[in-house]
Amino acid sequence: MSEALRVVLIEPTHPGNIGAAARAMKTMGITELHLVNPSRFPDSDAEARAAGATDVLAGARVHDTLAPALADAVLILGASARPRRLAWPEIAPRDAALQGIEAAHSGPVALLFGRERSGLTNQEVQRCHGLVRIPTDAEYGSLNLAAAVQILCYEWLLASRSETGPEPVPPAAAPATGAELEGLFEHLERVMVAVDFLDPKQPGHVMGRLRRLLLRAQPDRVEVNILRGVLRAVETQRMNP
Amino acid sequence: MSEALRVVLIEPTHPGNIGAAARAMKTMGITELHLVNPSRFPDSDAEARAAGATDVLAGARVHDTLAPALADAVLILGASARPRRLAWPEIAPRDAALQGIEAAHSGPVALLFGRERSGLTNQEVQRCHGLVRIPTDAEYGSLNLAAAVQILCYEWLLASRSETGPEPVPPAAAPATGAELEGLFEHLERVMVAVDFLDPKQPGHVMGRLRRLLLRAQPDRVEVNILRGVLRAVETQRMNP
Repeated sequence: MSEALRVVLIEPTHPGNIGAAARAMKTMGITELHLVNPSRFPDSDAEARAAGATDVLAGARVHDTLAPALADAVLILGASARPRRLAWPEIAPRDAALQGIEAAHSGPVALLFGRERSGLTNQEVQRCHGLVRIPTDAEYGSLNLAAAVQILCYEWLLASRSETGPEPVPPAAAPATGAELEGLFEHLERVMVAVDFLDPKQPGHVMGRLRRLLLRAQPDRVEVNILRGVLRAVETQRMNP
Repeated sequence: MSEALRVVLIEPTHPGNIGAAARAMKTMGITELHLVNPSRFPDSDAEARAAGATDVLAGARVHDTLAPALADAVLILGASARPRRLAWPEIAPRDAALQGIEAAHSGPVALLFGRERSGLTNQEVQRCHGLVRIPTDAEYGSLNLAAAVQILCYEWLLASRSETGPEPVPPAAAPATGAELEGLFEHLERVMVAVDFLDPKQPGHVMGRLRRLLLRAQPDRVEVNILRGVLRAVETQRMNP
């Protein structure tokens, strides 16, 4: 069941943290690890800190960019330890786990962890349906990377065990994948530029707002297709008014 | 409030684990650390792993035996990652935290963590009011010492906050009113008909899907304004292509 959760570490600097994260995952029954552009991997420090979880390291998938780690994910949640300037929907770890377990019936759920020093970029946050903020002390919230992985995987284990009874009724349509959503956002941006609503040099703020709005709704595949149909119709009209 | 919780590490072997435990504690607002007969302390490895929590290390109390670390404690709980031969009351982390917060009104609560390899001795267990067992995967339950400290301190923080009520919700942008949403949907329908996407005689199904999608996201006023701006730009383009 827990194979539905995928832990994605973006540009981890210290291989020891990768190993400790693998151990943290495995203690909670989670084994699917993706690494985006790690500084050093494989590495003996990672092996040492992984203890009995070297199989998780051996099975880790390494990517140059974030996109392939998210392409088939039906729910993408970013771990965030601190309030951000960029406003984005925030979920408590417990609620995130319950929501994730639910979504995992439809496909992979990805949990994104940013760099040790700087976390997730705004662009990466905008790939997420929501941010999971681990509550911390107000004055010192500097969670170690593996510690954050540990807490969120622990909540996942608890939530997966608390799930009882028959499987919930599946949604009417399959949730859109990360790749389908990116296709929608690119199309939307293109059309907004074409109708002179968006300055192609400054798409950021408005696109960010629209991403947040749509991701919050967790569109299914049919809805994405309808929206893309509307966008195509606008494009056709511009060429043949 | 959180000074009522005391973390006691018994005979930790690796100073790095002491530092990581101090950091884990501090992120959750817990600062009182007791060390019983540590192999190496103070130590540069402990300092390095403590990151911004070196003050917790500096304030740590070191004892030769367990007794003084527990003398004034009103509740003593032992952390245990695995089932034990010795039958002893077991509590889930969440319940332990609630019970601990309650007890902390009367005096210090001690959380005991055993040695990295062998955990707590039976004699030490018998000093405890109960054991806290962190749920783990059935096949691999080998939690790192600092990871166990992290999870239990996290539960303590959650429990202490739930006692004082939920954190205040930051003000969001004003939600769109029913009238504003209807204005948006009418505008959307008009544009979709204009670009020949929608049959004006049969708007129902598609409009229903798009309503459901957008209402699910509970758009705020700013978001509604952005969407209407996009629709106006499409209309303007059609008239002045």
